[in-house]
Amino acid sequence: MQRCISSLSFSDPLAEKIRAAAEAGFEGIEIFREDIVGFDGTPGDIAALARTSGIAITSLQSLRDWEGSPDDRRTWCDTQAARFLDLSVRLGAPLLVVCANTRADTLADPARAAADLARLADMAAERGLKIGYEALVTSTHVKTYATAWDIVQRAARPNLGLVVNAIHTFAADAGLEGLAHIDMARVFLVHLADAPTTRIDPRLMTESFRLLPGQGNLPVAALYASLLARGYTGPMSMEIFNDQLRALEPALIARDAMRAYDLLEDRMAADGAALSAVERVAFIELVCGGQEAEALAVLLSAMGFAKTHAGAALAAYAQGEITILLNRAETGLAHSLYLMQGLGVASLGLQVSQMAPFAKALEPGAKAGGHDLALVRGPGGSAFYLLDKPLPETALFRRALAPVKGAGTGGGLTHIDHFAQALVPNLFLSALLFYRAIFDFRSESQRDVLDPHGTVHSRVVANDDGSVRLSLNSSLSAGTSTTRFLEKAGYAAWHHFAFATADIFAVAATLPQAQVLQMPPNYYDDLNLRFDLPAPLVERMRGLNILYDRDGSGEYFQLYTRAINGLFFEVVQREGYAGLGAPNAGVRMQAQSREYEAQHALDMF
Amino acid sequence: MQRCISSLSFSDPLAEKIRAAAEAGFEGIEIFREDIVGFDGTPGDIAALARTSGIAITSLQSLRDWEGSPDDRRTWCDTQAARFLDLSVRLGAPLLVVCANTRADTLADPARAAADLARLADMAAERGLKIGYEALVTSTHVKTYATAWDIVQRAARPNLGLVVNAIHTFAADAGLEGLAHIDMARVFLVHLADAPTTRIDPRLMTESFRLLPGQGNLPVAALYASLLARGYTGPMSMEIFNDQLRALEPALIARDAMRAYDLLEDRMAADGAALSAVERVAFIELVCGGQEAEALAVLLSAMGFAKTHAGAALAAYAQGEITILLNRAETGLAHSLYLMQGLGVASLGLQVSQMAPFAKALEPGAKAGGHDLALVRGPGGSAFYLLDKPLPETALFRRALAPVKGAGTGGGLTHIDHFAQALVPNLFLSALLFYRAIFDFRSESQRDVLDPHGTVHSRVVANDDGSVRLSLNSSLSAGTSTTRFLEKAGYAAWHHFAFATADIFAVAATLPQAQVLQMPPNYYDDLNLRFDLPAPLVERMRGLNILYDRDGSGEYFQLYTRAINGLFFEVVQREGYAGLGAPNAGVRMQAQSREYEAQHALDMF
Repeated sequence: MQRCISSLSFSDPLAEKIRAAAEAGFEGIEIFREDIVGFDGTPGDIAALARTSGIAITSLQSLRDWEGSPDDRRTWCDTQAARFLDLSVRLGAPLLVVCANTRADTLADPARAAADLARLADMAAERGLKIGYEALVTSTHVKTYATAWDIVQRAARPNLGLVVNAIHTFAADAGLEGLAHIDMARVFLVHLADAPTTRIDPRLMTESFRLLPGQGNLPVAALYASLLARGYTGPMSMEIFNDQLRALEPALIARDAMRAYDLLEDRMAADGAALSAVERVAFIELVCGGQEAEALAVLLSAMGFAKTHAGAALAAYAQGEITILLNRAETGLAHSLYLMQGLGVASLGLQVSQMAPFAKALEPGAKAGGHDLALVRGPGGSAFYLLDKPLPETALFRRALAPVKGAGTGGGLTHIDHFAQALVPNLFLSALLFYRAIFDFRSESQRDVLDPHGTVHSRVVANDDGSVRLSLNSSLSAGTSTTRFLEKAGYAAWHHFAFATADIFAVAATLPQAQVLQMPPNYYDDLNLRFDLPAPLVERMRGLNILYDRDGSGEYFQLYTRAINGLFFEVVQREGYAGLGAPNAGVRMQAQSREYEAQHALDMF
Repeated sequence: MQRCISSLSFSDPLAEKIRAAAEAGFEGIEIFREDIVGFDGTPGDIAALARTSGIAITSLQSLRDWEGSPDDRRTWCDTQAARFLDLSVRLGAPLLVVCANTRADTLADPARAAADLARLADMAAERGLKIGYEALVTSTHVKTYATAWDIVQRAARPNLGLVVNAIHTFAADAGLEGLAHIDMARVFLVHLADAPTTRIDPRLMTESFRLLPGQGNLPVAALYASLLARGYTGPMSMEIFNDQLRALEPALIARDAMRAYDLLEDRMAADGAALSAVERVAFIELVCGGQEAEALAVLLSAMGFAKTHAGAALAAYAQGEITILLNRAETGLAHSLYLMQGLGVASLGLQVSQMAPFAKALEPGAKAGGHDLALVRGPGGSAFYLLDKPLPETALFRRALAPVKGAGTGGGLTHIDHFAQALVPNLFLSALLFYRAIFDFRSESQRDVLDPHGTVHSRVVANDDGSVRLSLNSSLSAGTSTTRFLEKAGYAAWHHFAFATADIFAVAATLPQAQVLQMPPNYYDDLNLRFDLPAPLVERMRGLNILYDRDGSGEYFQLYTRAINGLFFEVVQREGYAGLGAPNAGVRMQAQSREYEAQHALDMF
């Protein structure tokens, strides 16, 4: 199978698309007519550019509204076909894609369509070319690959074959069973694309809602595996028409499309979803300096963290299974981040069961930086260090940190329950694919949270047992907490970490209220509208600014710290509850918005 | 009928929502629980705020998943209901909205649902309140107003009535005929919302795709007219859950929601769409200065415009029915615009058949500026001057301009064919509503154009005979021509005007090619793939950089001038063709992008 991509999956000029696809390792690129128009050179120059870039031209796209045309259009159709075929020759494209006719005046006659395509195939044969015939859910008569296959068989030309299109197959609800009746040697090309749902108009879905496999919810992996299992060895092409994806740089689109192929391969190898090799968060690395560093140390101490290890510019704070590294270095990568963004998360350390699944994603040369940790770059450049041994056994830890004598570790926090990443909107889908393809995380469906200044889109991803679980958050609105945070903290920044405890009331009792995000009083009256809770419990929560939720399987208690430079912590007590407290995210954002605006008002004096 | 709005149609804190709704003239606002949570005060304070703002509280939203619950939830349901009713009292909300149960465990027993609602109504009656029962397409059993009405009738309580919801009615395909069987006095509330289509999952549609009436394509106007015709006199409420709308300021949302009501009224009065009173573009006012002013004068002259009138800081250039006013004033509003944005369009003058339809939209005090033109502010503050007499008869024209002797008027351009406005994404729907509601324009469906750097969404609006026709353009991508233009030219700027001619080849022959946007050579090869054109015609077009399109009814020829500060002109020859040449918009953007980048490269030296 050859991995290919369609030129219309990218924006930017054609030369950049070709280079980006080649550099990402694609074997072929399909060239759309629409992309030749603006190219500054001849079709032969495009062929030469592809050749020097090391990528094949898979096909010319696309002859449309052609077969089965009424007699009065037939002369023009043949002229047009000859021109397309001549262009294919000049372009060095061995295959011309013919999309099934969508015109209302198409003759409802498979024999006529077959005769037309046979004639076209003969014209192509004279030029040494092949024809690929593609069913479209939006075609007048040929909506499924089974119907197209019938016509291809009638035409009976060896250089005429089928183009199987995933998204049109799903939109037509055509099923995969029929692939068993098709000679895979006569499938000349496969178009891959995912979508969020099929519960949408087929034209809208196929024209505007396409996603990369792994970004949507359709059974692209099953189609992929089925074709390969039946012996398909030809080209496959990612054909993604999507405004949000096209807004990314060509290099990012190509990288994500390649990741989508890797994900399809992983799923096939694992016969379903692969298990994640990510086991737990080994550390959170925070960069800080000045007064904020003092404020952070006070907050961590108040939460029960003890400084267990210290070095020249690094200190480790620990509690239960949680380790926070405070980096105050005045040189290096983390310091650069501090200069740009102020206090924040520089990296996450992830304990992994094996390194092999990450081999393709590792940043080359990361270990040359004086430590022994492997680096993976996530969405927006966010850094993940992978550890295949415990943190204290790493050279980084042993060299940079010495134990602090008499450090207590008696806090009530046990482990990281979950955490959250804020993303600029264009990276949301790219991030989802990263966590699915590189970390083999599962994902939940999207939720919308009402911030007082707009809507925040949120989606949870996690490893198999949920021990590493994070929410991805993005917002188009200007004033939301997610957008505010991103204004100071880059493209994809960690805005919050939730720590688990067995007794949130005990933790809250020792945490000064000055450190705690204050809930609006009406929140507790509203709780009484939602749940039948004992009045004393509600009053206790009110006094400590603890939030509450309940689902079918249990209860959930939460509290938030005040933010430092936008970053905040959460303490949660989970009693069988499955979620992340999403019904409370709106009121949390309201409370943060209020604090932010109060702070902002002070700034004006 | 009382015009109301739901608090969840806005973002921002509740107090701002209430003030914005009151200032826009709404009679009532529905208060959602979710909005009370973050309010800094008691429910009584909300009631007081509404009172002092001069707006009624229409309802408390919403008691959910309540009626028909299994026995083991019944005690809690009654407790919960009492708490909601007590809150309604404190809030001063005369009506509590009960949304039909969506839980899987709801009993499939209308008699039980009726008994529950009767009990609830009795509890409400003790407090002097009413209950409104609302069918949801997403409810387990009660998906249509007809089913809900059956339950309300069974319950037989005078203070229990129906809430009719437009979007849930359309999503359930419930039809309007059943309204004939409902006693309008027992409809306590109507929820209005539009949507782009019903060809989408009902949950997605009702939760995320809502639009204001006039922004979508559903028969909200028919529902509105039908209810009023049957004697409905109660409150109606705009209940719009939509991320893109919520990103606007509360004052803009409230103004647009009020416009949506006006549009519904207009349509009812006109028994369908009202005829537009906008007849033609009377003038285009350009602000300019310095070298750009010289460049513009040269371009206009090359296009055949003659300076027909001149004044101290104003000059009129005319040709056929087209008048361009060049404003070089160094004081005043237009000059402020020039200082901010450089050369550009300051206003459009529109000839109207009558002023009455615009009465509500007129900017007060506009005529005090020393002229006699009425001003309407469009999307993003764009200025429209309305003329109910010919331009030369206006005081503005007579005072500021004197005829230029011997000015020729022999150019080949006859009138303005169409023009185009670029909009920041958040204003796209607001603009659509403006043109529909204030100018009574018709609208075509949305098109996506592929710019080399992303996607541009485009939608055409026009008066009834198409003599005033413009496209609205918006893009989420950073580098598109639309986005580039908006970076220098505000929120909603005019980026191009197309002038009609009977002979584009004659116009092109006199226009120096240095003024013409150069098409990529491959465009003309591609034309041969699309159309069966005589080779000499294609070569003639190639030599003059003329573009071509054809549709079912005729042919279309176009050429573009180079841009000055992003603004450009187009010359079109229309031979029965209906569209605006959308298939050529992509290549035009490519050519502009190339020019922009070449210019940008020069800037670096």
